[in-house]
Amino acid sequence: MDFIEKLSSIRKRNKSLLCVGLDPDRDRIPRFLLKERDPLLAFNKEIVESTKDLVCAYKLNLAFYLEEPKSLERTRDLIPSHIPVILDAKCGDIGNTARVYARIYFELMGFDAVTLNPYMGFDAISPFFEYRERFIFLLCLTSNPSVDDFQTAEGSIYLRVAKKASEWNKLGNCGLVVGATRTEYLPQIRSVAPKLIFLIPGVGAQGGKLNSVMRFAADPRGEKIIINSSRGVIYASSNPDFSQAARREAERLRGEINSLRPKEISDNNSGKSV
Amino acid sequence: MDFIEKLSSIRKRNKSLLCVGLDPDRDRIPRFLLKERDPLLAFNKEIVESTKDLVCAYKLNLAFYLEEPKSLERTRDLIPSHIPVILDAKCGDIGNTARVYARIYFELMGFDAVTLNPYMGFDAISPFFEYRERFIFLLCLTSNPSVDDFQTAEGSIYLRVAKKASEWNKLGNCGLVVGATRTEYLPQIRSVAPKLIFLIPGVGAQGGKLNSVMRFAADPRGEKIIINSSRGVIYASSNPDFSQAARREAERLRGEINSLRPKEISDNNSGKSV
Repeated sequence: MDFIEKLSSIRKRNKSLLCVGLDPDRDRIPRFLLKERDPLLAFNKEIVESTKDLVCAYKLNLAFYLEEPKSLERTRDLIPSHIPVILDAKCGDIGNTARVYARIYFELMGFDAVTLNPYMGFDAISPFFEYRERFIFLLCLTSNPSVDDFQTAEGSIYLRVAKKASEWNKLGNCGLVVGATRTEYLPQIRSVAPKLIFLIPGVGAQGGKLNSVMRFAADPRGEKIIINSSRGVIYASSNPDFSQAARREAERLRGEINSLRPKEISDNNSGKSV
Repeated sequence: MDFIEKLSSIRKRNKSLLCVGLDPDRDRIPRFLLKERDPLLAFNKEIVESTKDLVCAYKLNLAFYLEEPKSLERTRDLIPSHIPVILDAKCGDIGNTARVYARIYFELMGFDAVTLNPYMGFDAISPFFEYRERFIFLLCLTSNPSVDDFQTAEGSIYLRVAKKASEWNKLGNCGLVVGATRTEYLPQIRSVAPKLIFLIPGVGAQGGKLNSVMRFAADPRGEKIIINSSRGVIYASSNPDFSQAARREAERLRGEINSLRPKEISDNNSGKSV
């Protein structure tokens, strides 16, 4: 099943546009887990168990697994295969090297989607496009404060990325990362890329406003978006009941997102397209 | 010893501005090495042994070690500590995550320098700047064909990166990656960033012209540059004498670079600054 089919199916099944970011940090996970053989895996396992009926995807940030690459692969393997898993790699290198990354992330590690940095242009991305059944999210507008250094500066690179991504989306396997913190840019991005799926970080810990996101980034059906929360969900509590706290926060967030979708759609949770 | 001191010292000792890229690929290294316990390491070991008196740095491209992370650390460890080692990671992520990358690449793995992608702006880079004795090369103008998709498009992001990097270079630990394939942009980059060290890929296999690089990217002393060659050197031959062929090619390239430096300087190999 390709990424889009998986996403469409799980979204309906779980009535959810919420992606949970599995970014485990040894300094932040509950201390009693540190005695486990693979603490990051043990943490992720509990989070996944308690949220897998509430999400439309999981996102794994590569940086949190650099010291423990086995935990990355084990986490990917423990997530049920019907839930799409996005590797937040933000990589971007020339063709030669991009091919190596694409093979490892898609073929060897089996991720359904990957985030990529567009700075080097198309030939840093094209080897990923060749995997028709997988998916690429190109960084467009990120959720961090210094987004104005380059992305929104003169020349509006963020808009150029959105336009180029629309052109490159011939196989329907390209989307954008669009942060929730600078909502004033959302209408313009959606207008130049009406068909692309937006992966939206920055809600929660980073302060992005959910109602603006639903109003300006979602398509008219309240779709074409995946809203990610990492720290807000996984660190909802550091007590032994952390996974139940994560579940409550995921449920709350899923509900809040759904409450902001057009009423006639969210009521019956229909929607043929993603 | 910090990166700049190491670079300055080895440059004089080896009379070299050449960086060799250790990008070992199982499909390209001599086949007899595949029976070794760690073929990538065995390959790198021979290349380093035969070139360590000819280079001013080594560059390791992270992508080639993703499947075998141990080979990356072992290679880093086998390079003599007086030669600076650059990790070509091209990463770029927000503060939280950048901090993790910085700690791993600089503290745990002990690299002297790292390449970073500037797309996300300053706060994706700042945790790296805090390591005063290490060094950062920001992608400015890359050597791949699709450099025009974003970097040189309207708004000239490549120039903005060069300007910002000059501003951010308060501790003297920031340089730029400037590809050798589009030499028409070199004079402008050098003029807005007169003091920055340029790491220059794209000579050799990618077709960049060395005389234009020396003329437009180097400073008036023929310095402030590190010229990288990867495939051209390490795959000079696939025969059992591959390391000797690599040595010959590195020696040739070092000589060609030096022959293009201002005569009075290259003759006595002086130069107090880098």
